[in-house]
Amino acid sequence: MLFLPIIVSIFSLVFALFLIREIRKAPSGSGKMIGISLAIREGAMAFLKREFKTLILVLILFALILGFLIKPAGALTFLVGAAVSILAGFLGMWIATQANVKSANSALDSLNRAFQIAFHSGTVMGMLVVGLGLLGIIIVWIFFREPQMLISYAFGSSLVALFLRVGGGMYTKSADVGADLVGKIEKGIPEDDPRNPAVIADAVGDNVGDVAGMGSDLFESYVSAIVATAVLGIPLFGVKGLVFPIFLAAAGILASIIGTFFVRIKTESAQLSFGEQTEKIRQAMQKGIIVANLLMIFAAYFISRYFFGELGIFLALLVGLAVGILISKSIEYYTSDKRSPVLAIARSAKSGPSINIIEGFSQGMISVVIPTIGIAIAMILAYKFAGLFGIALSSVGILAVLGINLSADCYGPVVDNAAGIAQMAGLPEIVRQRTDALDSVGNTTAATGKGFAIGSAGLAALAWLAVFFEVAKLKIVNLMTPEVMGGLFIGAMLSFLFCALTIKAVSRGAFAIVEEVRRQFKEIEGLMEERAKPDYTKCVDIATKGALKEMILPGILAVLVPILVGSFLGLEALGGFLAGSLVIGFLLAIMMANAGGAWDNAKKYIEAGNLGGKGSEAHKAAIVGDTVGDPFKDTAGPSLNILIKLIGKIALIFIPFFLLFG
Amino acid sequence: MLFLPIIVSIFSLVFALFLIREIRKAPSGSGKMIGISLAIREGAMAFLKREFKTLILVLILFALILGFLIKPAGALTFLVGAAVSILAGFLGMWIATQANVKSANSALDSLNRAFQIAFHSGTVMGMLVVGLGLLGIIIVWIFFREPQMLISYAFGSSLVALFLRVGGGMYTKSADVGADLVGKIEKGIPEDDPRNPAVIADAVGDNVGDVAGMGSDLFESYVSAIVATAVLGIPLFGVKGLVFPIFLAAAGILASIIGTFFVRIKTESAQLSFGEQTEKIRQAMQKGIIVANLLMIFAAYFISRYFFGELGIFLALLVGLAVGILISKSIEYYTSDKRSPVLAIARSAKSGPSINIIEGFSQGMISVVIPTIGIAIAMILAYKFAGLFGIALSSVGILAVLGINLSADCYGPVVDNAAGIAQMAGLPEIVRQRTDALDSVGNTTAATGKGFAIGSAGLAALAWLAVFFEVAKLKIVNLMTPEVMGGLFIGAMLSFLFCALTIKAVSRGAFAIVEEVRRQFKEIEGLMEERAKPDYTKCVDIATKGALKEMILPGILAVLVPILVGSFLGLEALGGFLAGSLVIGFLLAIMMANAGGAWDNAKKYIEAGNLGGKGSEAHKAAIVGDTVGDPFKDTAGPSLNILIKLIGKIALIFIPFFLLFG
Repeated sequence: MLFLPIIVSIFSLVFALFLIREIRKAPSGSGKMIGISLAIREGAMAFLKREFKTLILVLILFALILGFLIKPAGALTFLVGAAVSILAGFLGMWIATQANVKSANSALDSLNRAFQIAFHSGTVMGMLVVGLGLLGIIIVWIFFREPQMLISYAFGSSLVALFLRVGGGMYTKSADVGADLVGKIEKGIPEDDPRNPAVIADAVGDNVGDVAGMGSDLFESYVSAIVATAVLGIPLFGVKGLVFPIFLAAAGILASIIGTFFVRIKTESAQLSFGEQTEKIRQAMQKGIIVANLLMIFAAYFISRYFFGELGIFLALLVGLAVGILISKSIEYYTSDKRSPVLAIARSAKSGPSINIIEGFSQGMISVVIPTIGIAIAMILAYKFAGLFGIALSSVGILAVLGINLSADCYGPVVDNAAGIAQMAGLPEIVRQRTDALDSVGNTTAATGKGFAIGSAGLAALAWLAVFFEVAKLKIVNLMTPEVMGGLFIGAMLSFLFCALTIKAVSRGAFAIVEEVRRQFKEIEGLMEERAKPDYTKCVDIATKGALKEMILPGILAVLVPILVGSFLGLEALGGFLAGSLVIGFLLAIMMANAGGAWDNAKKYIEAGNLGGKGSEAHKAAIVGDTVGDPFKDTAGPSLNILIKLIGKIALIFIPFFLLFG
Repeated sequence: MLFLPIIVSIFSLVFALFLIREIRKAPSGSGKMIGISLAIREGAMAFLKREFKTLILVLILFALILGFLIKPAGALTFLVGAAVSILAGFLGMWIATQANVKSANSALDSLNRAFQIAFHSGTVMGMLVVGLGLLGIIIVWIFFREPQMLISYAFGSSLVALFLRVGGGMYTKSADVGADLVGKIEKGIPEDDPRNPAVIADAVGDNVGDVAGMGSDLFESYVSAIVATAVLGIPLFGVKGLVFPIFLAAAGILASIIGTFFVRIKTESAQLSFGEQTEKIRQAMQKGIIVANLLMIFAAYFISRYFFGELGIFLALLVGLAVGILISKSIEYYTSDKRSPVLAIARSAKSGPSINIIEGFSQGMISVVIPTIGIAIAMILAYKFAGLFGIALSSVGILAVLGINLSADCYGPVVDNAAGIAQMAGLPEIVRQRTDALDSVGNTTAATGKGFAIGSAGLAALAWLAVFFEVAKLKIVNLMTPEVMGGLFIGAMLSFLFCALTIKAVSRGAFAIVEEVRRQFKEIEGLMEERAKPDYTKCVDIATKGALKEMILPGILAVLVPILVGSFLGLEALGGFLAGSLVIGFLLAIMMANAGGAWDNAKKYIEAGNLGGKGSEAHKAAIVGDTVGDPFKDTAGPSLNILIKLIGKIALIFIPFFLLFG
């Protein structure tokens, strides 16, 4: 039975290899462009390598713990999960750091060509994640035939995601904010200006944060969703409970691959206006995603009927898909510069930075309403349709066509880099206009991608909570007992604390970059006049060291607090803790993403010439909002995705320990 | 048995009358001072009257609902609760608006005299709240002898608190922020300058927000704590379950009264420096509060032994007292300009407004750690000592000496007004120095008072949650059911939404004030040169109308959402909803209070000449932080206190409806 999914997942890897070859064949342009791209790639690789050095120690530590708590084989599958996740992140980022320059270079000839290269580099990441993720699950099952081994496998991907997503998020915003604070505000030079010593670090950040980080986050969600469904399904339906989600995932891979073929800009002419270009790009991507989703819905219907012969299972899946779309659409609404929230924030900038902050902050808090009600209803419905198994299934529903969703998500940072390289290398106007159009759509897909990442993290975490209840053999987690209520308080508190620490990390990291950039502008003679070159690697180095250092405390807390709660307050309280942290983490993640995105777009709206335009008081106020929003949306928000998924796994893994200790 | 507590509560009212007479005997100073004070009093009274007009309609509506859902008598006790709370708030504010000018005038003669008047006007509020609150409970019990009637009585005070605290909070910060944005930032005139058209509205705001609002908030907590204990105690211990908390409250009243006699500045000389003066004021107040607390601990020990003969009951009380002190101390730590959080925020202001906002925001989020762990441990311990009854008792523990705590809390706004009047009336330097010293201590007591208000609201809300479980006859609120988990999500969401709406209300209200102040400066000729007087009443009017309008939506949500959750998801889910809203509301309230207080004090620290002092870039950045913090700490934070208490009462009152509907 598993033969078919194996073929499909291998096929997706072959497809990825094919795309890699295609991208690598494209020319990279002038020596200057290659130089810039190389600097970015080297910086990004250096960061990952440095991170892996620490990560390996942590992995070994946890492998020992798992070997002791569960069994030696658990340590092995744990390491397999980690290795596979690392491989996907590493390869995906490796191709992204090549595609950026090739996309910029291809923009000379054709918009479609530039677009295809960027989108396909995203598809490589998408295919690697789903292909490797699914293949790993199947192999682990074939070798061990134990749900526990699948759990260790998923846990491996969790720890990798903690490093890549949280560390990457800290890196990218330290570099970005630091570069902007000196470059744009103090020196008045444009974004991506090669004179800015932090410009390469900023571009590296896009890759380590938004490519490798995003990829590892969704790798974890994907694996978690399938494993959670299997772990809940096997006791109910035997092996069918495992084969069913694997088949769904395989169908999703095929749907994604087919979808990518619909992503192309057909008619094209050099006379297209900026708006027409962005519209075409947007439509092309939209089409592929819609095709993939429709195919998936059909496939899910037939697969559900084949395995279970009843509609409930299919509906639970559909609910997950629907809530995913709802969350993405609501994030789009709250961050679109055509809708009232962003317009209100932009207008408020006219009353100065304080009112701009207050307005953006409140809009962010209000924006949790629709996603929260959505996820609550989805959960209740999925349960009605198919019990706890249904809740896990709904998370598979949202993640099934991850392949193509990730293509769109990873496209954003690649074209962001491409536009940066075009600017730094001084490419002709036609190229700049095209890469800017690509980048502009990339900003939208970044917002939608964030919604997708949060929604799927929320559902995956809920599924994992169900698995925790199941494995811990809890019948009741009674909120009326003070321990559970205490757990709820502490869980909520951990989400607050984790969020705060990641934000603070950026403010400290950015400060270090600011100092260094100021130093270089002061000490390197002729830098402003382009007679001398800045020392890019110094900034890359500072951002790397900073991110690694700042990860320690939040990382330890995310692991230690669940263990303490479980040890001292017991398993039931641990259930309350997980629920508290999950609910608040989810709300905070949405608030952070939306407030940050809305501030960003309010600023861009003003920069487009509204409300006084660039240089006006309103613009200055909007820049303050945007800078506050940077760590909100790109560090704290995504880090909370990781937290809410990770604590559930820690809790689960340590159940034997709590039972011994209790 | 209830004879003694009746005597004590009447005695506290007599003591209040005695203090009122004493304050009214003090001279009010020059005609100019009387004029300013009258304008403040009239503005404050006008706001309350306008608010009461709407409030009465709401009260009648709910009286009808209660009469229908429970029984006609419930409507009556509900109205009694509301009336008593209104009376306490109204009288307390009435005397505060007289004490301000008399305190300023007495500062001519003696610091102690000025201090005593201000402190005693706070004591009037304290005595009215505890005296009327307790007397009401006893009378309702004597007439009806039904726990349900006590619940309606407490519910009455809740609705009043919703109007006074939330409406007052919106009023005070709209006026404050609006006055500052034009006066201080655009026109460069000092705080409390009589040329600013919003200066009277600002002073009115101190009274309606920090006196009447704070009083009604704590009146509700006080009544809720005693009623919750009685409702849980009566089924367990018979009438003893009611008489016991009433005795504790009576003992607390006596302890508070005795404590107030220790509050005086003994040695006094005109040569005292500013720092010595504030130190003396601080010590005087500290002494009274410590004496009252110590007396209360002794009394609680003997009363517990007399009624129950066991230590557990006493320990549960003590736990409440301890966690109250812990929360106050932690708020003091996070908002003190001698501790690292505020110093870090002040330093961050050197990197501009964005980093200042990010730093303050993260410090606020981090500051929830100690209070949250504290309340979780307190809850678990109180339950271990005496079950759900113990949790209710711990809320009595924190609130027993409310009489003297409120004296200190309401002292702040009175001396704030006194300093303002001294400035506006151009009183001599010696007066200004003394009122500034009084005001400086008032800022500290305001921060501590906020901690006390949040801590007691949190414990009172927890006690009420226990009452809800008891009355709804719930045995289990199982987090493993999707409805309860859905309730948790929606409850958390409501706290976010309520918080956001109250913050937005301030930004809109302040904007209206800004427009009006700008208009007056433009249209009234000679205003800046003091040749013409501004139209103060116009600003008072705008703030009043704005606050009333902005209250509608959050008020309706706080009432409606629990009813919807109970109706559609059932009682168990409603339990999850209450828990979610309570936990997040508590965390947000603390975060708001601390972030706001810390930004405020970081600004003051810079103004004192550090890091560049007034007018520096750091100062400008710190002002942005302070303005963002204003609605955080004085509107959203306190409003959340009300939310977490109110929803528990709504849920409880509507139980018969849910059972019918379900």
